Amino acid sequence: MKTPKEIVDLMFLKDEFSSFLGIQIDEVKEGFVQLSLKIQQIHLNGFGIAHGGICYSLADTCLAFVASSYGFHAVSVETSISHLIKVNMNDKLIATSILIHKGNSSAIFMIDIQNQDNLLVAHFKGSVRISKELW
Amino acid sequence: MKTPKEIVDLMFLKDEFSSFLGIQIDEVKEGFVQLSLKIQQIHLNGFGIAHGGICYSLADTCLAFVASSYGFHAVSVETSISHLIKVNMNDKLIATSILIHKGNSSAIFMIDIQNQDNLLVAHFKGSVRISKELW
Amino acid sequence: MKTPKEIVDLMFLKDEFSSFLGIQIDEVKEGFVQLSLKIQQIHLNGFGIAHGGICYSLADTCLAFVASSYGFHAVSVETSISHLIKVNMNDKLIATSILIHKGNSSAIFMIDIQNQDNLLVAHFKGSVRISKELW
Amino acid sequence: MKTPKEIVDLMFLKDEFSSFLGIQIDEVKEGFVQLSLKIQQIHLNGFGIAHGGICYSLADTCLAFVASSYGFHAVSVETSISHLIKVNMNDKLIATSILIHKGNSSAIFMIDIQNQDNLLVAHFKGSVRISKELW
Repeated sequence: MKTPKEIVDLMFLKDEFSSFLGIQIDEVKEGFVQLSLKIQQIHLNGFGIAHGGICYSLADTCLAFVASSYGFHAVSVETSISHLIKVNMNDKLIATSILIHKGNSSAIFMIDIQNQDNLLVAHFKGSVRISKELW
Repeated sequence: MKTPKEIVDLMFLKDEFSSFLGIQIDEVKEGFVQLSLKIQQIHLNGFGIAHGGICYSLADTCLAFVASSYGFHAVSVETSISHLIKVNMNDKLIATSILIHKGNSSAIFMIDIQNQDNLLVAHFKGSVRISKELW
Repeated sequence: MKTPKEIVDLMFLKDEFSSFLGIQIDEVKEGFVQLSLKIQQIHLNGFGIAHGGICYSLADTCLAFVASSYGFHAVSVETSISHLIKVNMNDKLIATSILIHKGNSSAIFMIDIQNQDNLLVAHFKGSVRISKELW
Repeated sequence: MKTPKEIVDLMFLKDEFSSFLGIQIDEVKEGFVQLSLKIQQIHLNGFGIAHGGICYSLADTCLAFVASSYGFHAVSVETSISHLIKVNMNDKLIATSILIHKGNSSAIFMIDIQNQDNLLVAHFKGSVRISKELW
């Protein structure tokens, strides 16, 4: 059976969109993942701040990784995100997973996204269905 | 006062992330926006299907545009998305806004995302706060 | 195999909380349920309007009924509700289910709640897991 | 200006639905509220477990109280709840607020609901708009 780190490395290796965004893996263990991302020009929307899709994509990648860290394939069911403060050019975002509940075939995680000043910029919640299929 | 089309064109012109994703504007009127997007290699995650952030970003751009179509600046408060079926390479996605409720200073929209076979691939809901600041 | 009407009648018969609230069944068929409720003194909060839990409870009962109308036991996974306009004493609420997506083992419904003036007072969305256990 | 305790007592005194449900106030301070509720026969649904509306109503009352604890009138915008484990007859529920974000005119809280065994039975998130109107 693969380790959480091996599973996440495998997922990340082929994840073209996460790579393109510039997502980096800070830490991976069973039930916990931390990712980071530096805001660049290409991430900006018409207001010159990060597009809402950037925080969502970072959180969704974090959810996919942490949900898979238990060794089984998982699929996202329902996700929500609150955008709390503006994310600017050159900000460094850190996404951290927090397990809320884990059952046999489902789990719920929050993903907090903070900036370089430790301010919470977005709060994400996702529920996943966990299959019996091993990584 | 600018028309809905003028406002959205103005927003889109400077929206680097939406342009990068390949989002196209199909239709804009007051209270209604339709966008489309063709899935390309760069949109894929480690499973070879579209990253969840693609549908979210498409819907979030659609929300920003339709919320601004009434002539005032608007900001997203809370958004959620359900990913219903897999989105594959070369799929053509169409995002359509549906107004649920509009008050003086807030509004709620659903954004339906369908593929080229008219299947609903994702269902998004977003609430926005509408300011008094004219476009 | 029981009909949708038989299943819902069976569920409702033992549902003490829904009965207490005064929920009434208007229509039941496979994949569709409509319920109604008249606002009474006991439903009010400290502002003299209906407590948010009233609309939620009405919608949640509607979700449980419609999710079971296909013949199998179902359990709610994730629900959200937007409260749009105030609900007053003596208002008559009508809750109507709308199927958004149905897969093998899961489904998503919206429940619209309108008042006697056909105004949308609350918008609910719920995802359910559908088991293989027959009613 | 009224204290948080005075405001919440005032709200609770006239809140017929919360009183009917049997909600009790454990603790109130600025930005924090804890409530409790014992599950009784009248709270049960057709499966003999607590109706989803019970946890929602407890959380929604907690949200209303904590949102008002800063001294100003507040109104709920968007709420969601995940039901995690079954709530049974005689269970004692404790709802605790956690501030996620507070801006000038809005705030987001989570409300955790645990049972007598300290198990998380439901996880609620609510965003509120805070007015300038003093209590």
